[in-house]
Amino acid sequence: MEKVVLAYSGGLDTSCILKWLLEKGYEVICFMADVGQDEDFQAARDKALKIGASEVVVKDVKAHFVEHFVWPAIRMGVIYEKRYLLGTSLARPCITLALMETVKEFNCQFISHGATGKGNDQIRFELSAYALNPEIKVLAPWRIPEFCERFEGRNDLLEYAKNNNIPVAATTKAPWSMDANIMHISYESGILEDPSQPGPEDLFQMTKSPQNAPNNQYVQPLHILQFLNQIGGEHGIGRIDIVENRFVGLKSRGIYETPGCKILYEAHQDLEVYCLDREILRVKSLLSERMAEYVYNGFWFSPEAEYVKKCLDESQKSVNGRVTVELFKGNVLVVARESLSSLYNQELVSMNAHGQLNYTAATGFIEINSIRLKEHYRAHGVTANNVKGLSRNFSRVKLN
Amino acid sequence: MEKVVLAYSGGLDTSCILKWLLEKGYEVICFMADVGQDEDFQAARDKALKIGASEVVVKDVKAHFVEHFVWPAIRMGVIYEKRYLLGTSLARPCITLALMETVKEFNCQFISHGATGKGNDQIRFELSAYALNPEIKVLAPWRIPEFCERFEGRNDLLEYAKNNNIPVAATTKAPWSMDANIMHISYESGILEDPSQPGPEDLFQMTKSPQNAPNNQYVQPLHILQFLNQIGGEHGIGRIDIVENRFVGLKSRGIYETPGCKILYEAHQDLEVYCLDREILRVKSLLSERMAEYVYNGFWFSPEAEYVKKCLDESQKSVNGRVTVELFKGNVLVVARESLSSLYNQELVSMNAHGQLNYTAATGFIEINSIRLKEHYRAHGVTANNVKGLSRNFSRVKLN
Amino acid sequence: MEKVVLAYSGGLDTSCILKWLLEKGYEVICFMADVGQDEDFQAARDKALKIGASEVVVKDVKAHFVEHFVWPAIRMGVIYEKRYLLGTSLARPCITLALMETVKEFNCQFISHGATGKGNDQIRFELSAYALNPEIKVLAPWRIPEFCERFEGRNDLLEYAKNNNIPVAATTKAPWSMDANIMHISYESGILEDPSQPGPEDLFQMTKSPQNAPNNQYVQPLHILQFLNQIGGEHGIGRIDIVENRFVGLKSRGIYETPGCKILYEAHQDLEVYCLDREILRVKSLLSERMAEYVYNGFWFSPEAEYVKKCLDESQKSVNGRVTVELFKGNVLVVARESLSSLYNQELVSMNAHGQLNYTAATGFIEINSIRLKEHYRAHGVTANNVKGLSRNFSRVKLN
Amino acid sequence: MEKVVLAYSGGLDTSCILKWLLEKGYEVICFMADVGQDEDFQAARDKALKIGASEVVVKDVKAHFVEHFVWPAIRMGVIYEKRYLLGTSLARPCITLALMETVKEFNCQFISHGATGKGNDQIRFELSAYALNPEIKVLAPWRIPEFCERFEGRNDLLEYAKNNNIPVAATTKAPWSMDANIMHISYESGILEDPSQPGPEDLFQMTKSPQNAPNNQYVQPLHILQFLNQIGGEHGIGRIDIVENRFVGLKSRGIYETPGCKILYEAHQDLEVYCLDREILRVKSLLSERMAEYVYNGFWFSPEAEYVKKCLDESQKSVNGRVTVELFKGNVLVVARESLSSLYNQELVSMNAHGQLNYTAATGFIEINSIRLKEHYRAHGVTANNVKGLSRNFSRVKLN
Repeated sequence: MEKVVLAYSGGLDTSCILKWLLEKGYEVICFMADVGQDEDFQAARDKALKIGASEVVVKDVKAHFVEHFVWPAIRMGVIYEKRYLLGTSLARPCITLALMETVKEFNCQFISHGATGKGNDQIRFELSAYALNPEIKVLAPWRIPEFCERFEGRNDLLEYAKNNNIPVAATTKAPWSMDANIMHISYESGILEDPSQPGPEDLFQMTKSPQNAPNNQYVQPLHILQFLNQIGGEHGIGRIDIVENRFVGLKSRGIYETPGCKILYEAHQDLEVYCLDREILRVKSLLSERMAEYVYNGFWFSPEAEYVKKCLDESQKSVNGRVTVELFKGNVLVVARESLSSLYNQELVSMNAHGQLNYTAATGFIEINSIRLKEHYRAHGVTANNVKGLSRNFSRVKLN
Repeated sequence: MEKVVLAYSGGLDTSCILKWLLEKGYEVICFMADVGQDEDFQAARDKALKIGASEVVVKDVKAHFVEHFVWPAIRMGVIYEKRYLLGTSLARPCITLALMETVKEFNCQFISHGATGKGNDQIRFELSAYALNPEIKVLAPWRIPEFCERFEGRNDLLEYAKNNNIPVAATTKAPWSMDANIMHISYESGILEDPSQPGPEDLFQMTKSPQNAPNNQYVQPLHILQFLNQIGGEHGIGRIDIVENRFVGLKSRGIYETPGCKILYEAHQDLEVYCLDREILRVKSLLSERMAEYVYNGFWFSPEAEYVKKCLDESQKSVNGRVTVELFKGNVLVVARESLSSLYNQELVSMNAHGQLNYTAATGFIEINSIRLKEHYRAHGVTANNVKGLSRNFSRVKLN
Repeated sequence: MEKVVLAYSGGLDTSCILKWLLEKGYEVICFMADVGQDEDFQAARDKALKIGASEVVVKDVKAHFVEHFVWPAIRMGVIYEKRYLLGTSLARPCITLALMETVKEFNCQFISHGATGKGNDQIRFELSAYALNPEIKVLAPWRIPEFCERFEGRNDLLEYAKNNNIPVAATTKAPWSMDANIMHISYESGILEDPSQPGPEDLFQMTKSPQNAPNNQYVQPLHILQFLNQIGGEHGIGRIDIVENRFVGLKSRGIYETPGCKILYEAHQDLEVYCLDREILRVKSLLSERMAEYVYNGFWFSPEAEYVKKCLDESQKSVNGRVTVELFKGNVLVVARESLSSLYNQELVSMNAHGQLNYTAATGFIEINSIRLKEHYRAHGVTANNVKGLSRNFSRVKLN
Repeated sequence: MEKVVLAYSGGLDTSCILKWLLEKGYEVICFMADVGQDEDFQAARDKALKIGASEVVVKDVKAHFVEHFVWPAIRMGVIYEKRYLLGTSLARPCITLALMETVKEFNCQFISHGATGKGNDQIRFELSAYALNPEIKVLAPWRIPEFCERFEGRNDLLEYAKNNNIPVAATTKAPWSMDANIMHISYESGILEDPSQPGPEDLFQMTKSPQNAPNNQYVQPLHILQFLNQIGGEHGIGRIDIVENRFVGLKSRGIYETPGCKILYEAHQDLEVYCLDREILRVKSLLSERMAEYVYNGFWFSPEAEYVKKCLDESQKSVNGRVTVELFKGNVLVVARESLSSLYNQELVSMNAHGQLNYTAATGFIEINSIRLKEHYRAHGVTANNVKGLSRNFSRVKLN
């Protein structure tokens, strides 16, 4: 019998998919990854076994996720369309890594998932899977005509569940969908699809009103992030509400909470400008923008992401130090920084002393830089006589 | 007699420079621009005339500055090293425009200023001046050996002022320097030069603790910005504390307040992603990053800035709409947006309906995108057998 | 009856597709575009009518192609992967334009073509068609399971042709495929698929051994290109043999002849560097590289290509002049250029005169530029003492 | 006495500079680097000693130059403004390396050179020197007012030489200046300053008319390049005549001969596209363009060049193979290539077999890629009805 590893969530969709795959004659191993979401794994496991899964595997990938995906993302400074810290995009390849490990352990030929045909997640899961195992086959029921025709809406799923003794949660479904992990929670769909309507306040689960925070020291990446999530959340850090461009070419609206990583991102960025040479910073910025797109589009496991990651890592060798941030009612305020590897030279920059810099040097610097401008404006006829043309004929302030 | 237009501030430095230029035999016209700073122009004028200026010209450039520099900057999305909104960099070419108008009105051959030889401002002033009038000559006393040798420190200036009956403000000088205009205030130098020490709270002048804001409508760019500065300031919006890379190659620490423009920047960025095609957004981002460098480095008047500005303007034709922001204790939170020219299609993106999009299309999309990855990992020997190599051998969560 | 416009070539594939579409119950209008290829349109028309096409439309798009695709491409400087001048990529959207005009004239709902599922052409045709008419439907038989299963190889096509009285050319098929238009001829597939084997000499049709060329003047873009193709071809200009990266993620080997445009490309590039400001040239280079990808990938009709085209056009306003090229046995040698709008200033650049440039200015320019380097190497411990470390301990040349 | 290492050429300029430095009271060590130019080092040494140099050091840097500058440049694919292979720009930092070694051996405080104040070379020499030894001081006589006022033209130098018994070559000076090394010869200035006049045929020294070439194998980089220079030169390979943008902002005209490296550049580029993943190639292209600017502008020894060089090296790991080129009358024609690490997959790309690729996949790929286009053109009102608007109303070809 052909064996499938199903990325299982315990919810209505993947429970129906599980049953449907069994109907189709597959043996199904359900897989769940603990990426830090708030989830009753025991209940999900019981449910899957009851439906007919031959095995339910839950793997704890939190520490790996923080160390090998979140930390590098902060170092690489990846941020999508200038605002989104890529919490879901980073989790997908990490989950796929553990899922493909399960594929190998159980010697399967297929994987399956409940992602729909319009989103980014299907792409991120499958590209990662193909990269990790070019021979793997994917069953994506929401793109299989037979499945889609059978389940045209939520009611069809509910009826199928009822007919097949699949337990359905008594709680009413939230009017949005949610993806949570230790880095962030994202909210989209449902009532959020109208970008002219603010997200409701009871949506947020990770960020709260300010309280007192403990004064602790942490060493493990996982513990550092957990701590930052806690105090960041308490100070309301890291909420964004954006419309973003999906890889498939649609625009979609999402609301995100990323408290701990928002703090790390701001602190790292500050330290980086402090430590790095200006021109390396420029190149890093270019590469980082490309990397954000690779990650968002699902190309974490790809030749280009591997290559650019190496280049970005190379840039970080001298980025070390201590940054002081204030967290206050949603703000991450960098107020001070120190570093032994910074190129900042207080003595040299001081306005009060001519220091080691020849004070006349800038004259030549400006003169040389102006050659090109003078030539251009000479050649194009902009001279003293037409300054007026550029100006508004400024009004003179009346004074005695 | 040769005539100089001196960019005059009324402070100790430019007052001494005024006197020194007169000593050197120049006729001096003092020039001041009202860019929205809090300044006693009458007192400055009286002082300059007393020292010996043959004329003092004060021009009101506020409205021009907002319309032709601040507004375009927001549209172009320019931000230096991802954080600085370029308040000083934008004011310099605008001031130079009015200064060069004065040069022409008084038929002068020289301009002079009190900027030092290590900073960005000298470059911004002079490149703009050369672009507007390639024949102009610049006297930058802080780069002239004779002047620098005579005035080695502040005490030399104070003594010279005393000997020449130049009034010196009784108030003690703040232990930092400041540049204010209607867009922002920047603080640098002095005690701020140590980036490991936070800026003192009494430094800030533009941003305060939250209060109630009026509910008004404004049409003129200048009035809109004044209103946004007021309510932004009241809600503590737009403070940054950064170390930045100067054009001359030094790193320098600055603290900035930009309340109104921070609101505009966030709102515009949100609207832009909402309205623009994804790929145009990518190109705009590239061009915008270049433009920020031109502006920061003093090349506002340059062939490249003129060219890139046209390209950026071209991208903005469909960026129109209404953005709702919440201002709360330092936060600018975009919570909703509407636009008639957005490409956002709620019906198409909806997860609940298969809509106009063929639900199986993504299968082919992913398959084609994976060809390259599969070939790469095949060629480089990464196959099902070495997934383990990439993973950490994830621990399985123990469940019953 | 549903109506299809079929992009018809007169060859075996599209003749069989024509018949197959008729069998499927469609009314078929055959469309051919005269883009300058060497083709017997009359024979093709007769053949299509004999098979059963209800109409055969041949449109002459040569002049439009040269004016609105080839000329802009030269101005924009688009070149794919630094070598391919995009002859086929540019023709596709132009042909689609005329094809969609036919769709409208005959009020059709479908288009069809004979491009295969691995190539770039299917994408270029279809993206252009969707952009020009988002409602159009595409029948791509080589991606339709029923068709592909029926025609697994060339023999199946030959048999089908025989059974349906479709005439087959008596001449043996060349062991490669070819795409010709007034801009270029490309050769790929068949024996060319082995990149370690040179293309055979009898492959080339457009470029020959040198002869004498006439001395004429041409004004119409089409006539200029025809003339340049002729003399370029006679001098063996514009052959390349490359492996390139297809949009679908495959590498493919192609051989190209582009005599006239190679001359134009080289002359234009020379003139451009001569006339344009350096920094505009840098921005143009960035944009041009992006545009080449859009064109290659089939996005000629797209928001991003429209936008970038406008930006590139904007850069060309001062690119005017005369370039002298020598054509010699495959070489396009630019030997001289003149322009009234060049920024080149012979007097200023002359080494013999100090000219208008202050000869000491470069001292300050270099000093300022070196600040960053000195700081970096000081901070990272590279000093006079370790020059040896960087060098190879150079051997001294023995002299008396 | 303070000691200077003078970059000496044996010509009139540096001989007069040598004498002038002695007059000024410096002890002068003359330094020459053998970078492969055709030079009588013995005569130059004798002349310098006669004038008064305390030592003349000639170092052979050819092998180091080829291995550590030319080879990396080829790998990195650096080319300035798409045409110039950077022969002089690469030699300058290499020469400076050996010069600074001499500075250390003789324990000097100064270096001096004969480069003028408008060119690139002064910048390349001095930035390299400052990077290698931030404490070094530079004497650039052509930027020292006293020197420049004394020597206003060539006649002043000739008279000074005569008065000081400095031998002057009897041969008349060529009406251009020249810079030769094992990589290339460049020609500029003098009669070449008029870009509308072709360079004279007797200018070229490195490239000749075709002859028969030997069939040898070489292993050492130096020997490979010498061989390629020889056969490339015999076939007239690698001449360019360009106007380029100098770092100081001037445009300048140069003629270059780079026979061997032109062959290497073309072969390497071909191999690279053959071996590299498409997206890595895109990133490499970006980085390579930046690197070319660093090298041209004199920043070989700089944090950014060191960083980008590492990134570029990283990209080359899988670029290995064999390229067959034909050299014919100025042409370098790549006709075949082989590589064990190429991603080219002849079986997969073959048009004749559906291969491993699902033939229907492209349908979904195109459909997804068209979503964005359709939305855009729908939103902007371009529909079937206005195709005409875009077209020229193509004329239909009259057939029977």
